[in-house]
Amino acid sequence: MGDTVKRLAILGSTGSIGQQTLEVVRALPHQFRVVGLAAGKNTGLLTKQINEFKPRFVYSQNAMPHLANAEYEFLSLEDIACHPQVDTVVIATSGKSGLSPTLAAVKAGKNVALANKESLVMAGEIITNEAKLSAARILPVDSEHSAIWQCLNGERQPAAQLILTASGGPFRHYSPAQLKGVTAKQALKHPTWQMGRKLTIDSATLMNKGFEVIEARWLFDMPFARIKVLIHPQSIVHSMVEFIDGSTKAQLSYPDMRFPIQYALSYPERLSSSQLPKLDWNRINNLTFEQPDLDTFPCLKLAVEAGEKGGSYPTVLCAADEAAVELFLSERIKFIDIPKLVEQTLEQHQAIAHPTLEEIIAVDAWAREKVMQLTTGDNL
Amino acid sequence: MGDTVKRLAILGSTGSIGQQTLEVVRALPHQFRVVGLAAGKNTGLLTKQINEFKPRFVYSQNAMPHLANAEYEFLSLEDIACHPQVDTVVIATSGKSGLSPTLAAVKAGKNVALANKESLVMAGEIITNEAKLSAARILPVDSEHSAIWQCLNGERQPAAQLILTASGGPFRHYSPAQLKGVTAKQALKHPTWQMGRKLTIDSATLMNKGFEVIEARWLFDMPFARIKVLIHPQSIVHSMVEFIDGSTKAQLSYPDMRFPIQYALSYPERLSSSQLPKLDWNRINNLTFEQPDLDTFPCLKLAVEAGEKGGSYPTVLCAADEAAVELFLSERIKFIDIPKLVEQTLEQHQAIAHPTLEEIIAVDAWAREKVMQLTTGDNL
Repeated sequence: MGDTVKRLAILGSTGSIGQQTLEVVRALPHQFRVVGLAAGKNTGLLTKQINEFKPRFVYSQNAMPHLANAEYEFLSLEDIACHPQVDTVVIATSGKSGLSPTLAAVKAGKNVALANKESLVMAGEIITNEAKLSAARILPVDSEHSAIWQCLNGERQPAAQLILTASGGPFRHYSPAQLKGVTAKQALKHPTWQMGRKLTIDSATLMNKGFEVIEARWLFDMPFARIKVLIHPQSIVHSMVEFIDGSTKAQLSYPDMRFPIQYALSYPERLSSSQLPKLDWNRINNLTFEQPDLDTFPCLKLAVEAGEKGGSYPTVLCAADEAAVELFLSERIKFIDIPKLVEQTLEQHQAIAHPTLEEIIAVDAWAREKVMQLTTGDNL
Repeated sequence: MGDTVKRLAILGSTGSIGQQTLEVVRALPHQFRVVGLAAGKNTGLLTKQINEFKPRFVYSQNAMPHLANAEYEFLSLEDIACHPQVDTVVIATSGKSGLSPTLAAVKAGKNVALANKESLVMAGEIITNEAKLSAARILPVDSEHSAIWQCLNGERQPAAQLILTASGGPFRHYSPAQLKGVTAKQALKHPTWQMGRKLTIDSATLMNKGFEVIEARWLFDMPFARIKVLIHPQSIVHSMVEFIDGSTKAQLSYPDMRFPIQYALSYPERLSSSQLPKLDWNRINNLTFEQPDLDTFPCLKLAVEAGEKGGSYPTVLCAADEAAVELFLSERIKFIDIPKLVEQTLEQHQAIAHPTLEEIIAVDAWAREKVMQLTTGDNL
């Protein structure tokens, strides 16, 4: 990194990842400068962030007339993402709104610190192809993919196998019968990670791990057969890589998103940070591992199957899941209905082998609509 | 590695590491060619190895008149170690006999795959200084140092901390009272690793881990304060590195010396090997960690203190330990006498700050003699 300050644009700055990204920047003010901030509806927090970090470029879904002065330039998400004065774009928006700015940043050859899962799940082929053309670098922000990336650092041969760890969520070891009765309140209590509501539910169903398998396929150009999932309830080992000689490397830290965020921002360097908690081996006595229960948590299997089929299937997976999780959070369906709705939607989908961005957006809309139809009917 | 075959000389080919090195070569015949073999007194096995691998250069402590023909060139250990037709020298001899050929190989700028602990413990300063001058590469063969080396691969910043794991040996959780009665037979039953007798006893006393701390200090240019030891009874995590950002990497495999041997030989590449057992996460459910008990196992503390004092102290540590272990194996002293003898010998040593090789050899002899004196007197 030398003496140069990295200029960051943070899209989704008021969300969980966005706020933690700003914590990292706050702790390392000489390394990073925030030149762009973009948020959805939380204009109160966005205003505070703008006052603190003084970005040049701002996007807000809601109007912010109190900021309409010469200090700030109001741009679209896409225009911030590809602006020449931005070195690294942090895509911390949730849902499919990250798709278009991710593509803009990738096409502009930026460093793209990608926390938005939907982008790679829905449009992994398009994004990775564009990145090859522009030499953009996609820097994973998920703890699992960051772990794999760190383990691959300096290695010359492709990995033999990627092992994504998963906490197992709050319902690990629940029987199918026990799962029937779980409430949104219970599902929102994740044992190890603090995350947004959608992601917390996806962790409880293991759908989140399925998305991560699909992301890993694109980030590391790895066939699905060589990506495994392993339950590790302590969330200390964030993932592992097995190499062709049978040796395995793992990356470990406390479950705190500031680790992978900081690594993505500082890459290829590491930066000393006193704020991040070091592992205390006086207290860590036991790391446990078990195989995931794919029968009780079918979302993981559905995701890997959709990923293997490829084309527009992962978009259906993503969109149907988002719609189903919304219905669960508003108490209109049960926890165990989430995989059922996703599976039925996938079954009724007419696949497109290599969808364009427009087709992906259309498939997304179709899948959400289909979930609503399935829910209002008597299909569950 | 490309298409070139690496030419290996294996010094100590009939010992445990030597034999396992030849197993690695046997499994990868297109990658490696054995051009030198050297052994001590086991001429029977050496003859078999020579017949199988057809080396050009041979050393044997005992005469081998049946081999005295034009096919083989009988050379000294040092002459094999620095021969122009040798690319990588595997130093798998035990004790201080490895010192002089290690230095010869290092001075000749070879790749030196170093399994001999005494070389770095006794002469770490001399060897690493010579390696800097000649650009020789010292490739660790110990599983712990190989793990650290693998974790450091591709990293740009020095490590914040090295964490050497230790199985804890067969007497982990023994009380000092229980330790008093242990026999050589009990001490020779290591729970996870198959090793030579001396090394197995050193593992039971934790002296071996102390040697490894000193080796790590030289191999990775790391102050002792940043090298920690952690007991990990399963011997799956072979060591860890904590980085300046608080992230930790670990290297894992089953306890099998062929992993670090092959990595040292193939570095910077990894080679696919079907013979090496892959980790089976269906069976690995639990990795446990605990702090070492330095009061019950004082050898580790003695070693780190000797390492910190530096100069000729580590030579005294090494030599006194070897003499004491021999006395224990021949049932002339008790298990708990080993640290006592080492400690008393260290206390009576008149230190040399930067010993030459000759001084190291003289100190080694003094320390062995001192242990005998202490044993024949009533000092225990």
